[in-house]
Amino acid sequence: MKVTLISGGVGGAKFALGLRQALQDQDASLSIIVNTGDDMWLTGVRVCPDLDSMMYALAGLNDAERGWGRAGESERVSAELKAYGIGWPWFTLGDLDLGTHLARTTLLREGLALSEATAQLCARWELGAQLIPATDDEVETWVETTAGNGTATMHFEEWWVRTRATAPVRRFLQRGAESASPAAGVVEAVAEADVVVLAPSNPVVSLGTVLGFPGAGGRAGVPGIAGIRQAVQRTAAPVVGVSPIIGGSPVRGMAAQCLEALGQPCSAEAVGLIYGSRGQGGLLDSWLVDTEDSGALPALEASGIAAEAVPLWMHNGDASRRLALDALSAAQRAAGH
Amino acid sequence: MKVTLISGGVGGAKFALGLRQALQDQDASLSIIVNTGDDMWLTGVRVCPDLDSMMYALAGLNDAERGWGRAGESERVSAELKAYGIGWPWFTLGDLDLGTHLARTTLLREGLALSEATAQLCARWELGAQLIPATDDEVETWVETTAGNGTATMHFEEWWVRTRATAPVRRFLQRGAESASPAAGVVEAVAEADVVVLAPSNPVVSLGTVLGFPGAGGRAGVPGIAGIRQAVQRTAAPVVGVSPIIGGSPVRGMAAQCLEALGQPCSAEAVGLIYGSRGQGGLLDSWLVDTEDSGALPALEASGIAAEAVPLWMHNGDASRRLALDALSAAQRAAGH
Repeated sequence: MKVTLISGGVGGAKFALGLRQALQDQDASLSIIVNTGDDMWLTGVRVCPDLDSMMYALAGLNDAERGWGRAGESERVSAELKAYGIGWPWFTLGDLDLGTHLARTTLLREGLALSEATAQLCARWELGAQLIPATDDEVETWVETTAGNGTATMHFEEWWVRTRATAPVRRFLQRGAESASPAAGVVEAVAEADVVVLAPSNPVVSLGTVLGFPGAGGRAGVPGIAGIRQAVQRTAAPVVGVSPIIGGSPVRGMAAQCLEALGQPCSAEAVGLIYGSRGQGGLLDSWLVDTEDSGALPALEASGIAAEAVPLWMHNGDASRRLALDALSAAQRAAGH
Repeated sequence: MKVTLISGGVGGAKFALGLRQALQDQDASLSIIVNTGDDMWLTGVRVCPDLDSMMYALAGLNDAERGWGRAGESERVSAELKAYGIGWPWFTLGDLDLGTHLARTTLLREGLALSEATAQLCARWELGAQLIPATDDEVETWVETTAGNGTATMHFEEWWVRTRATAPVRRFLQRGAESASPAAGVVEAVAEADVVVLAPSNPVVSLGTVLGFPGAGGRAGVPGIAGIRQAVQRTAAPVVGVSPIIGGSPVRGMAAQCLEALGQPCSAEAVGLIYGSRGQGGLLDSWLVDTEDSGALPALEASGIAAEAVPLWMHNGDASRRLALDALSAAQRAAGH
């Protein structure tokens, strides 16, 4: 069985661990298409937060307590950069993490595509999954914020980490998205899959960068990378999504602010309906919401999405595995239709 | 009094410390023109070994015991790069040092010239001297070696560090030298100086990259950066050099192999004669050799160089200071002629 997960960083990585475990006794291969919209050039190196979160989690090297980055991390280099007044003093650039950025930057400068560099970096471990960046092109999410009387435009990571998503968003800009195309293997991974899963990731800036996400009430949406949404709409595989919102709040991160900036409500029901039914030109055959949100099922079902309420909290590895099994079962049922 | 030192890395830095101390009670300014021929791109960052050696020494952060790099250094990032199989496993890239490389690379990518980036990095400390790279252009020393039946061409640092200068040299290549020009301030620092000192640095690959160095017996020399040699030849200031060779051996490093590769003998006398008297189109008014090499004085004097034998071993800070005072005295005497 070929399973393809479309994912952002930390939240998606938790789910990916559960999915890998759920598949381990089966004859299955797992491909993970990862958001690259948070990528950036910082102090001369290419940083890919979501790819790294995914790689570290699958390699068992992530800092589970802190929730991001490498376990046993230090910041010796970062302290030097601060002393020189270079870079972003509020952005943690761990030493071990920096090793990854430097290795990647070296490969990119040698002419490798990001997907090739990613494959080479991942070859260091037995990850049990193939990581594919959504695009080899540089697509970066920037944020136009309203600050006092004027506006300020900053990289998504600056808005996210420095302002902690408090700077009011006028719109998200996806620089480079208009000319970006899917990385080698992305469309194939979706087209040839037996199951496609949308991870419980930020629907606007993680999955939205990959698949697009509409605005509402006069707000600009995000375009996504041309070709990936179409591949999801056309695949013969069932497509099941897992809600990143439980009871009106994102499980992790700042999806609420992102949805608000696009004029969209923050609920499992709303995100499911915006993703939409594949039968109606949307992305989903099936949508998993938390048991707390079972009230959303009738509206979702009415829109043509096979919705189910299951426990979504991934409070440990076993909960992640059970959620992944729920997603695979939902996909199987959707395929039976 | 304006003093300008032309220098390589570690050996020159030792002398620079002595010179700074010798000048501290005088109304004096110290400019140091530093070799950039060992510079390189490594794992996507610009490494400038001699500039860094000089900066760390003047900032009091150098590892005096090991003889190079930063004190209290670690190699966390380097270990990651090795695990990824990226870069040069035999080249130590310390974490603190890497902070400097990343800061520099960031500034270079922002469009600053190396001399501007160097000034910005050095502003972190009170160095008591202005560091100027010999050139803002990329001049890199590469080595064509004879290996078995064939030849191999490698960066100078690879020849120096990986082969420990054992790979037989066919010739040194100074890539980029033909189109390089002196960095802003270099020619001025020489022209406007009251004293110019050539540090006890490798005459071929350190000072030779800056000033040029001839080959002999059919061997190719090194061209140097056009304009700096002429500035030294023309300056109204006395020019005094300090021999890097004591009793037929370099004080530190592999000058013997470098001189041999150019068909030149390794002695304080030979290097002084090759630098030559300014009166005869050379570089020196005065040349300091070690007391052990006082036998060289007659030949040097006969060639028009005011040679003196003084203790050259810089076994501690005070010895470096006394040597610097000897150099300043020699300059004064040369100016009196």
